[in-house]
Amino acid sequence: MSYDRALTVFSPDGHLFQVEYAVEAVRKGTCAVGVRGANIVVLGVEKKTTLKLQDPRTVRKIALLDDHVCMAFAGLNADARVLINKARIECQSHRLTVEDPVSIEYITRYIAGVQQKYTQSGGVRPFGISTLIIGFDSDKVPKLYQTDPSGIYSAWKANAIGRSSKTVREFLEKNYKENMSDDDSIKLAIRSLLEIVQTGSKNIEVSVMGPDSILRNLTPEEVEAVVTVIEAENAAEAAARQSSK
Amino acid sequence: MSYDRALTVFSPDGHLFQVEYAVEAVRKGTCAVGVRGANIVVLGVEKKTTLKLQDPRTVRKIALLDDHVCMAFAGLNADARVLINKARIECQSHRLTVEDPVSIEYITRYIAGVQQKYTQSGGVRPFGISTLIIGFDSDKVPKLYQTDPSGIYSAWKANAIGRSSKTVREFLEKNYKENMSDDDSIKLAIRSLLEIVQTGSKNIEVSVMGPDSILRNLTPEEVEAVVTVIEAENAAEAAARQSSK
Amino acid sequence: MSYDRALTVFSPDGHLFQVEYAVEAVRKGTCAVGVRGANIVVLGVEKKTTLKLQDPRTVRKIALLDDHVCMAFAGLNADARVLINKARIECQSHRLTVEDPVSIEYITRYIAGVQQKYTQSGGVRPFGISTLIIGFDSDKVPKLYQTDPSGIYSAWKANAIGRSSKTVREFLEKNYKENMSDDDSIKLAIRSLLEIVQTGSKNIEVSVMGPDSILRNLTPEEVEAVVTVIEAENAAEAAARQSSK
Amino acid sequence: MSYDRALTVFSPDGHLFQVEYAVEAVRKGTCAVGVRGANIVVLGVEKKTTLKLQDPRTVRKIALLDDHVCMAFAGLNADARVLINKARIECQSHRLTVEDPVSIEYITRYIAGVQQKYTQSGGVRPFGISTLIIGFDSDKVPKLYQTDPSGIYSAWKANAIGRSSKTVREFLEKNYKENMSDDDSIKLAIRSLLEIVQTGSKNIEVSVMGPDSILRNLTPEEVEAVVTVIEAENAAEAAARQSSK
Amino acid sequence: MSYDRALTVFSPDGHLFQVEYAVEAVRKGTCAVGVRGANIVVLGVEKKTTLKLQDPRTVRKIALLDDHVCMAFAGLNADARVLINKARIECQSHRLTVEDPVSIEYITRYIAGVQQKYTQSGGVRPFGISTLIIGFDSDKVPKLYQTDPSGIYSAWKANAIGRSSKTVREFLEKNYKENMSDDDSIKLAIRSLLEIVQTGSKNIEVSVMGPDSILRNLTPEEVEAVVTVIEAENAAEAAARQSSK
Amino acid sequence: MSYDRALTVFSPDGHLFQVEYAVEAVRKGTCAVGVRGANIVVLGVEKKTTLKLQDPRTVRKIALLDDHVCMAFAGLNADARVLINKARIECQSHRLTVEDPVSIEYITRYIAGVQQKYTQSGGVRPFGISTLIIGFDSDKVPKLYQTDPSGIYSAWKANAIGRSSKTVREFLEKNYKENMSDDDSIKLAIRSLLEIVQTGSKNIEVSVMGPDSILRNLTPEEVEAVVTVIEAENAAEAAARQSSK
Amino acid sequence: MSYDRALTVFSPDGHLFQVEYAVEAVRKGTCAVGVRGANIVVLGVEKKTTLKLQDPRTVRKIALLDDHVCMAFAGLNADARVLINKARIECQSHRLTVEDPVSIEYITRYIAGVQQKYTQSGGVRPFGISTLIIGFDSDKVPKLYQTDPSGIYSAWKANAIGRSSKTVREFLEKNYKENMSDDDSIKLAIRSLLEIVQTGSKNIEVSVMGPDSILRNLTPEEVEAVVTVIEAENAAEAAARQSSK
Repeated sequence: MSYDRALTVFSPDGHLFQVEYAVEAVRKGTCAVGVRGANIVVLGVEKKTTLKLQDPRTVRKIALLDDHVCMAFAGLNADARVLINKARIECQSHRLTVEDPVSIEYITRYIAGVQQKYTQSGGVRPFGISTLIIGFDSDKVPKLYQTDPSGIYSAWKANAIGRSSKTVREFLEKNYKENMSDDDSIKLAIRSLLEIVQTGSKNIEVSVMGPDSILRNLTPEEVEAVVTVIEAENAAEAAARQSSK
Repeated sequence: MSYDRALTVFSPDGHLFQVEYAVEAVRKGTCAVGVRGANIVVLGVEKKTTLKLQDPRTVRKIALLDDHVCMAFAGLNADARVLINKARIECQSHRLTVEDPVSIEYITRYIAGVQQKYTQSGGVRPFGISTLIIGFDSDKVPKLYQTDPSGIYSAWKANAIGRSSKTVREFLEKNYKENMSDDDSIKLAIRSLLEIVQTGSKNIEVSVMGPDSILRNLTPEEVEAVVTVIEAENAAEAAARQSSK
Repeated sequence: MSYDRALTVFSPDGHLFQVEYAVEAVRKGTCAVGVRGANIVVLGVEKKTTLKLQDPRTVRKIALLDDHVCMAFAGLNADARVLINKARIECQSHRLTVEDPVSIEYITRYIAGVQQKYTQSGGVRPFGISTLIIGFDSDKVPKLYQTDPSGIYSAWKANAIGRSSKTVREFLEKNYKENMSDDDSIKLAIRSLLEIVQTGSKNIEVSVMGPDSILRNLTPEEVEAVVTVIEAENAAEAAARQSSK
Repeated sequence: MSYDRALTVFSPDGHLFQVEYAVEAVRKGTCAVGVRGANIVVLGVEKKTTLKLQDPRTVRKIALLDDHVCMAFAGLNADARVLINKARIECQSHRLTVEDPVSIEYITRYIAGVQQKYTQSGGVRPFGISTLIIGFDSDKVPKLYQTDPSGIYSAWKANAIGRSSKTVREFLEKNYKENMSDDDSIKLAIRSLLEIVQTGSKNIEVSVMGPDSILRNLTPEEVEAVVTVIEAENAAEAAARQSSK
Repeated sequence: MSYDRALTVFSPDGHLFQVEYAVEAVRKGTCAVGVRGANIVVLGVEKKTTLKLQDPRTVRKIALLDDHVCMAFAGLNADARVLINKARIECQSHRLTVEDPVSIEYITRYIAGVQQKYTQSGGVRPFGISTLIIGFDSDKVPKLYQTDPSGIYSAWKANAIGRSSKTVREFLEKNYKENMSDDDSIKLAIRSLLEIVQTGSKNIEVSVMGPDSILRNLTPEEVEAVVTVIEAENAAEAAARQSSK
Repeated sequence: MSYDRALTVFSPDGHLFQVEYAVEAVRKGTCAVGVRGANIVVLGVEKKTTLKLQDPRTVRKIALLDDHVCMAFAGLNADARVLINKARIECQSHRLTVEDPVSIEYITRYIAGVQQKYTQSGGVRPFGISTLIIGFDSDKVPKLYQTDPSGIYSAWKANAIGRSSKTVREFLEKNYKENMSDDDSIKLAIRSLLEIVQTGSKNIEVSVMGPDSILRNLTPEEVEAVVTVIEAENAAEAAARQSSK
Repeated sequence: MSYDRALTVFSPDGHLFQVEYAVEAVRKGTCAVGVRGANIVVLGVEKKTTLKLQDPRTVRKIALLDDHVCMAFAGLNADARVLINKARIECQSHRLTVEDPVSIEYITRYIAGVQQKYTQSGGVRPFGISTLIIGFDSDKVPKLYQTDPSGIYSAWKANAIGRSSKTVREFLEKNYKENMSDDDSIKLAIRSLLEIVQTGSKNIEVSVMGPDSILRNLTPEEVEAVVTVIEAENAAEAAARQSSK
């Protein structure tokens, strides 16, 4: 049977297999996490141990789309660049035509629309990536969206994509609180990644955007500091649990 | 045999299998219900339990196409967005060219036409969605239309699409009355959904449009209130049945 | 063997199987009948028992193409709409260019030509419908044409398409008379449909066009009245036959 | 093996099977005959017993291409209409550009060229028809050409296409005489068709064109009269043969 | 294995099978012969016994491309017409642009180029014909070229294509002399064809072009006369051989 | 199973096999090495033993893209030329439009983008090459980038592509030092290649670019001299190791 | 397995089979040799025994591309003509745009680029030819390039393509000397061909270009003379070897 090899064909029970296989490519990608706090929005990404001589700057999985909007992705890097380019051009072209920056939802819908188109027309395969899109509109409210290879998108308080994203999302669900402070938001993003990243701060990257719409990348030291705090807390908590027995 | 895999080919007994498989994709989608009352038209949709951190606003299955016309759908979300975008553009373009809003039937015919085209030309698959389209024309009469993946459309007093839609439609047929009051129309929509939604008001969303052509989304509390009334009535009725034995 | 799956390929004995399968889709459709009287032309169509809440107006199988020309069809509804739209546009465009309405034969030839094209070029399947086209040209003579999925067309005094059309056509051949009065023409159309419709008037729709080129749809009551007369006649005839034994 | 299913592929021994299968479709068509006399050219066609209520005018297998040129065909009716339309447009466009009517050979070459193109390019199947083309150029000499699905054409004194055309052609070869009178030409066309048409004049249609370039369709009565003469002659001849024994 | 069915694919040992199959179609065609004399160039072609009523003029295998250049072919007639049309248009267009007639080599190269293109691009099959092209340039030297389905061309003193061309070519090689008189050139062309044509002059056609660049078609009587001479010579020679034993 | 033969199709576990096979073509190519020093950037490439009469200049695997940017590649030579041409045109066009030379990252992103496009659209195969791109922007800092057939790119201090690139990269990782002098940088590039090239300097080519953005190709003598030094050092070191036992 | 039949697909181990099969088509072609002397460059080609009546001029495997650049080829003749035409047009167009003749490397790169394109895009097969390109640029230095079906090119002192080219190349490697005189260059080209051509001068053609950029074709007598000298030398040498035993 070859329902799953044809690009734009339903299977008898209504499946689009190529889209489901593209989701597998996403599941093979590194994990990315997004968390909305009261005033900021945080992106945390699992960083493959870069090879010793590789410039980590060029393998980042976080990309600015416009001044005020930023995207993380999981899946095929080269596919992501195509989407990033298309999105950047749309952002610029929107500024030129409408004389206003895109809203975060607008650019999300645009990216999801491109992804959908590649699931319905012949001659191309779906994009092998999911995305997390963050940013601020003029209402100064932090925004977090997610898209997937089928072209679905939705808004989230916190979410994860890529490898083991289910585990990470469940952690987020258990620990997310409304109106978190900036520090708590960053801490939650890092804690959730630590659920699946055994190697500590060196494989974690964090970017933060505040209402000034400026993206700030945390330094390795800043990440390390948060990790240390988390580990101390975890140890304290474990000790507490132990003594309470 | 591969009649069912080729996009635009009849089987020996005159079937278009890809369209039938797209209908399967619709049958996997959540259920949506439409009910026309005397003065209003109601859309009720089964809501997947959103994940805890997901913004329910962005996973709604009800979308405005223009001020006075609104669509619910069942099936593939990303496909629906494509149709919604095309329909919105057609609405705007109609306003610009004809200097009048589209009629509800016009936009229904347009959507069904797009769906048909994808069943006859090579290189694309059918849309995996059915739609319910509601709205008011200048005659201030509530309108309710339905389209399916083959591109057929028709008008209804009340109808259901998606998961278990046959059960829900039969319920509607038994309980629909002409010229229902606003409250009865809303109640009927919710009651029909409760036939297949075991989890009560939290998985039900309701939108209502009146002759002012303004779409109003019921609050969870409003839905909950109606559900409570229905459950009380059902209990009373069951008790009556019991005592009448 | 796959002669029948390829879109535009002859089989060794000169068949075009996809066209023959499209004819099967027509044979699955509801029956439609056309009858030319002395001064009018009648279309009668078998109506599926509409679901209780469905608006029967939007599932009609009779459509105006222009003021003076009208089409009934059997087969895939969504395909029919495509042909109807194309035909309507051709009618309008003909009026604009030639400043005259299309002749009934012209628009028939146009529709048949579109159907043929879909049997010879790659990338599309044939249309799964047959049509009956009626109307009046400036000569005030009633016209009745038929087209089929292969793109053949011809003119008729009376004819039937769709489910059991052979039975109905044989009935028409036995009972057609030249220069029938308006009432007899309508009666013949209804009688012929009653040969295959067991459920009486409720599943029959009738439209009539006279030399004023205005299409009139008979009311259910008018149809019911004719059915009653026919049943009375049949009963009388049966009694006569009985007594003559 | 699938040499015969691919549209534009030679088989190892140099065959184009799709063209040969199209010839089969021609062989399934009704027979058509052309005869050149001294001053006229005659087309005779076998007419399917039209269904009782069918207008025989619209199922004719003889079509005017321009005032002075006319075509009969055997094979798929709907394909023929496409060729007829193309030929008519070419005739008109030739008149407009060159300010002269097409010559009979010119339009034959045009039709054969269209047929060839459909045997060499991908994505379309060959035309399932052969044609007989008659007419007069300014030299007032009767012309008769034949084309086939491969796109070959040639001129003839008399020829037949379609069902049993071989039998009919052999009859023509035995009985054709140079410079036949108008009556003899018509008689020969009808006699040759009677070789394979058992049902006499009612299944035969005849059209005649003279040097005035006006096509005249014989009335059923005229055809019947000729058939009667032929039958009388045949009977006389048979009697003569009988008595001479 | 399907190397031979795909249009533009090499087999593992470097073959293009579709081209080789097209050559088979040529080998099934009637034979054509070209002979260059001192002052003239001769084309002789085997003529299929035309059917009795067929106009031999329209089934000729020799066609003028321009006043001074002429082509014979072997293989699929309808394919040949396409090439002839293309070549004629090129001749005219060359005259218009360059204000000079094409050279014989130029138009040969053009025809071979068209043939090659159909062996390398997808979606079309190779042309099923070989050609012999003759004519005179301004140098008044007789020219003879040959092309084949692969698109190769070359110049010849004498050559044959089509059925049994190998036998004929060997005869030409044995009997060709430099600077033959006009009569000897014509006689050689006819003698070579008689090697494979058993039926004498009636199945042979001959065309001759001299330095005046005017193509002259020999009458059947002229051909018959030469055949008679040849047969007499052959008989004399056979007698001589007999008596010398 | 044919997931790996279709151009733009995911396998069930999310693989793009054609891209992975293109990587195999790269692994069959000769090795290339890039090393960034404090002030220069070095490209070293393994040179196939050129055939004795071949001009080594035209089989070089290092190509200038613009004055200040240079590319080495591993894999299919002819594919590389296509990419080189596209990149050169982009460099020129960038100069014309923006009136500035491209940045090294810009042209890297451009090349990687071209490579990605060939992995997602139908009808073309991926490029069978990886590239190393070096150069200087106006900041006078040496740059080194790498791209692969999937369209991924990244920046490196030192890296290797092609045959045995894993071995060479590991050697580079062990021996790379920050801020190496020009001589040490060149020596490291050559030493790393000697890990897999047994035949010494004759199969090694080295190019160097300094902050003046001028590419200098080392002469065979210069390479030989470095090789001699390295061998001496290796011998000394081996001796030292020996004596230290 | 069908990796080798698809036009633009890598096999799992990184092969492009269609290119390799095209190389087989080259290996079936006649041999061609190029030799650079001090002041001239020589092309020698194996000539198929032309059929007795064939004009050898039109089956030459050496073609001028422009006044100063010339190409020999091995493989499919008709493919070669396409490349030759494209190259000639490029030469002319270069002269028109740049007002300078193409350099030999420029036109080589152009030809190789065309060949590559046909290995990567769908719908066409690779060119079944290799080429040797010779000529002089304004520097008056003899140039010799080679291209192959994959689109690779390189410069050579002497090289061979086509049938048994490996044997011939090895002979050239053993016997090539720097700065050969004109006579020695010609002699080497002919001697190398005699390694595989058993039939002496009659199957060898030689063309020579000097710094005046004029191509001179050696007469059969000139070739014969050189062959005689070579055979005498070989005989003498054999005798010497014999006597020295």
